[in-house]
Amino acid sequence: MKPFCFAKNEIIESKFASCHPLDIGMIRGYAIFDFFRTVGPNPLFLDDYLARFTDSAKSAHLPLSYSREELAGIIHELIAKNELEYGGVRMILSGGISENFFTPASGDLFIFCEPLKLPSEEKYKKGVKLLPVEYVRPIPRIKTTNYTLPCFLSVDWPSQGAEDVIYHNQGLVSESSRSNIFMVKEGVISTPASHILEGITRKKVMELAENVSVRDIQLDELLDADEVFMTSTTKRILPITTIGNQVIATGKPGNQTMSLMSAFEKMEKNMVFSTR
Amino acid sequence: MKPFCFAKNEIIESKFASCHPLDIGMIRGYAIFDFFRTVGPNPLFLDDYLARFTDSAKSAHLPLSYSREELAGIIHELIAKNELEYGGVRMILSGGISENFFTPASGDLFIFCEPLKLPSEEKYKKGVKLLPVEYVRPIPRIKTTNYTLPCFLSVDWPSQGAEDVIYHNQGLVSESSRSNIFMVKEGVISTPASHILEGITRKKVMELAENVSVRDIQLDELLDADEVFMTSTTKRILPITTIGNQVIATGKPGNQTMSLMSAFEKMEKNMVFSTR
Repeated sequence: MKPFCFAKNEIIESKFASCHPLDIGMIRGYAIFDFFRTVGPNPLFLDDYLARFTDSAKSAHLPLSYSREELAGIIHELIAKNELEYGGVRMILSGGISENFFTPASGDLFIFCEPLKLPSEEKYKKGVKLLPVEYVRPIPRIKTTNYTLPCFLSVDWPSQGAEDVIYHNQGLVSESSRSNIFMVKEGVISTPASHILEGITRKKVMELAENVSVRDIQLDELLDADEVFMTSTTKRILPITTIGNQVIATGKPGNQTMSLMSAFEKMEKNMVFSTR
Repeated sequence: MKPFCFAKNEIIESKFASCHPLDIGMIRGYAIFDFFRTVGPNPLFLDDYLARFTDSAKSAHLPLSYSREELAGIIHELIAKNELEYGGVRMILSGGISENFFTPASGDLFIFCEPLKLPSEEKYKKGVKLLPVEYVRPIPRIKTTNYTLPCFLSVDWPSQGAEDVIYHNQGLVSESSRSNIFMVKEGVISTPASHILEGITRKKVMELAENVSVRDIQLDELLDADEVFMTSTTKRILPITTIGNQVIATGKPGNQTMSLMSAFEKMEKNMVFSTR
């Protein structure tokens, strides 16, 4: 983490940030968050992320005492103070101290700046492996901090050569632990419609790709696709070439995936950022 | 909470306890805990709870630098310092600061003493209502802090006259959000075998009741039972008289439930506690 953060209404040294351990963010895993990247010092798609963060707070019954404009102001101040370049910004709103240690209360807002570790060049060139896991996230549309299962499973990913998991339930694919999933079959790009968090990168890819079919996707279909890729803030577009023991098509990143990867990077570079 | 707690290796004032907001206990909901009651100042079934807590830590890949004996020592000291009587003790082990903000690391241990609010007399006399929810807890055998879904749903329980939820998946009942479930049909007591946390109260009830059938239970069966009850540390044995819109049998606590309630309270009173 970078030296300064926003914690409980003020900018302080990150190492002094603290929350109470009885906050239901800790004792019940009840908190919401969001995370975005900066291009140089400029927050990428900030309006989208702030909209999602404030929506998550509202849906999760957690009062947030800052407007989107105020949050943007704090974020710009924090990025400048940390001299953050090509980093990540994490916003957390905890569930608060709850009288019955359970029901959502009124929590604390934290904003941290972090160095960012993007996937290696090799992963973009060769694609990655996902492990199928039968699971569906509860209330996936809200960006909660509920990652108990994938954190637990992640201990075994290195030995399995896996980047992450892919969730499926009753035959239907939803998402990876922190990414959305896309497939290409006979030229048509599709992405799951249900039980997902609507990723900002997913939204931008859908704008770039046009005519993406948003529908239910069976795991069997995905295994039989011409191309599969995942999208997330920290990965942009990352080709998936193996799912479990199944190699996808030729086992190499496909043409449409690579073309979208280029288009996305170009869009990022051409972004005009508002100066404050 | 009571005035003193154990936090990061020392007994301090509870209000000064703190964890870092970037601990994955907060940003990924990755932490384990346990909770037990005291009878007067004496921890009830302490050995069972400490065994489960240390097992949870190990299973969750979280190093715990205290033995069960050392934990018992700290707990007795904390209870004495807080003059806790008929209260609750909460142990939390956070997931720690993780280099990749995801994989389990090495966290902090916290122990708090809390006043305890038992269910009202009326609830024991009339029974309570549970709401069926299609869900199955991931890694339920580990006592994680993963309660995102029920905390979210709990906002609506008062208006629905509900005490809690009852989870079912593909027709099979598992548990309530923080309690185990039992049913009685034609004199036979049964409790779900799979996808549950093995509650300490559940274990004690099985010792008291003898011949409890541990098996898969369909939701339909439960709705058609003669008696249904839930067990937990803070509820002991609480009759369930309504599930969703369905009244169970006569809608009153059954004889076997009431007999087990008496037996459990008697066992508690007759416990001989080791003096330290």
